[in-house]
Amino acid sequence: MTVLVVGSVALDSVETPFGKADDVLGGSATFFSSAASLLTPVQLVGVVGSDFPVEKLEPLAARGVDLAGLERADGQSFRWRGRYRHDLNSAETLETHLGVFSRFSPKIPSQFRNAPFVFLGNIDPRLQLDVLQQVDRPKLVACDTMNFWIQSRRPDLLELLKHVDMVTLNDGEARQLSEKVNLVQAAKWIMDCGPRHVIIKKGEHGAFMFNRDSIFFAPAFPLEEVFDPTGAGDSFAGGFIGYLARTGDLSESNMRRAVMYGSAMGSFAVEKFSTERLMSLTRAEIDARIRELRQLVTFEEELPA
Amino acid sequence: MTVLVVGSVALDSVETPFGKADDVLGGSATFFSSAASLLTPVQLVGVVGSDFPVEKLEPLAARGVDLAGLERADGQSFRWRGRYRHDLNSAETLETHLGVFSRFSPKIPSQFRNAPFVFLGNIDPRLQLDVLQQVDRPKLVACDTMNFWIQSRRPDLLELLKHVDMVTLNDGEARQLSEKVNLVQAAKWIMDCGPRHVIIKKGEHGAFMFNRDSIFFAPAFPLEEVFDPTGAGDSFAGGFIGYLARTGDLSESNMRRAVMYGSAMGSFAVEKFSTERLMSLTRAEIDARIRELRQLVTFEEELPA
Repeated sequence: MTVLVVGSVALDSVETPFGKADDVLGGSATFFSSAASLLTPVQLVGVVGSDFPVEKLEPLAARGVDLAGLERADGQSFRWRGRYRHDLNSAETLETHLGVFSRFSPKIPSQFRNAPFVFLGNIDPRLQLDVLQQVDRPKLVACDTMNFWIQSRRPDLLELLKHVDMVTLNDGEARQLSEKVNLVQAAKWIMDCGPRHVIIKKGEHGAFMFNRDSIFFAPAFPLEEVFDPTGAGDSFAGGFIGYLARTGDLSESNMRRAVMYGSAMGSFAVEKFSTERLMSLTRAEIDARIRELRQLVTFEEELPA
Repeated sequence: MTVLVVGSVALDSVETPFGKADDVLGGSATFFSSAASLLTPVQLVGVVGSDFPVEKLEPLAARGVDLAGLERADGQSFRWRGRYRHDLNSAETLETHLGVFSRFSPKIPSQFRNAPFVFLGNIDPRLQLDVLQQVDRPKLVACDTMNFWIQSRRPDLLELLKHVDMVTLNDGEARQLSEKVNLVQAAKWIMDCGPRHVIIKKGEHGAFMFNRDSIFFAPAFPLEEVFDPTGAGDSFAGGFIGYLARTGDLSESNMRRAVMYGSAMGSFAVEKFSTERLMSLTRAEIDARIRELRQLVTFEEELPA
């Protein structure tokens, strides 16, 4: 089954302790698509400026990402410049130029409107709501958000939460949104706003999936070298939603598997700059990492005496 | 099999957002024993002052903790006063009075010297080394440490590491000791100093067990209420070493189970002040939490097509 993703397509310039990259592919929709397209067909809706090197998107198109919803607008593309220090935990934003993204108004092409899986990347919740007006009863809608919208668009975000099945956000965002320090309490608070499933991403500390009556935890893969953390969260979402769309199965046991695909994709994303590692990835490598993640947490209970 | 623990026995005064407790049982050897004695016999070596309310230790003795190695010295007992803010992540130390603990020189009673399992709680590494001179070829020696000793007694600590099988420390301590930010690299560095096993405790984010050729990860139990984090790490160590001693089995698969007992004990310890919850705990409650922890991370791999 197909996934529709709406989000940013950007040019990132990143410095890490291991090197720097200028004007490389970035943006939530880009990372999401790079991961999800390894598993299922993807339809992308976003906007780039007239300066965007569209040939950089050709490998994505070759892998089954339908770019018919990628608008080219007059003006500059969304550019982000950031730096990671030694601990790689948090990005320091040096420059943000929204460019044409500041006037983004998603238009879902008619042939995308019946996508069974929809991922609303991190954009203004008013736009996320607008997208939901344009699509035709998807099987599953998930959304992401960020601290800026939680602070500046709280009523719209709360309205959005009434209309989505699932929200993905990081631990800091979950705490900010719920005003609860404890993550179990935070997840319950968010589920009370509407979503049946809350995914809380904790970066190198793994991710929780909270459902109405269960909690699942996926570890992060313990990498010896983390090269560039940019895009890990959107790659996680791409692996997770991509796997759900590929299987079309929303049972608890399948959603647990899907979270592991999310964790795997997040771990690959950080191994190189931009989407480089995701674009070179093979199905065999993904399967191997899923098995390694399983081995990481496997223990046998004691046999009864 | 019996575990010998050497460490502090203290009186803690703790403030949390949920209440305060004055002069309650604390100290590394106390928390360790409270957890380990649920699983196996324990021999404790430590020191208290002439002011110590020894009747507080009677429940421990009743549960099989041999206090023959608890010295009573003239002077004040070790007292710690601390406070946890809203996020409960890090203790703010308000007062530390080492009292008789500042002159502690562990003397291992002759009947304790052949204990097959030895846990060297967080004390001066010179004293930890001295304990190893007094014991008779244990099956397994584990040690803990802290930032203060890593900074002030580095050469002694490195010498100690040559003589222990396992070290338990938190993520910050592992980074400080190894001068590596990445925990996989930090663990390898520490194993290169001697220990075959390194346990890195990450509090609410779970714990890693690094062996020469494998990594195991145990999640922390996602509690909805964390009451008082004091002693979680020593309770973890008590559950872990206690389970190894109970089973006498140092295979990888059994060590993985042991880490889960550590995680379970750490999660119980934080549910109430001091050792209160550990002292009321039943074997059935422990087993139930182990099953819940297993359920938290269980997923089935996809069946082959």
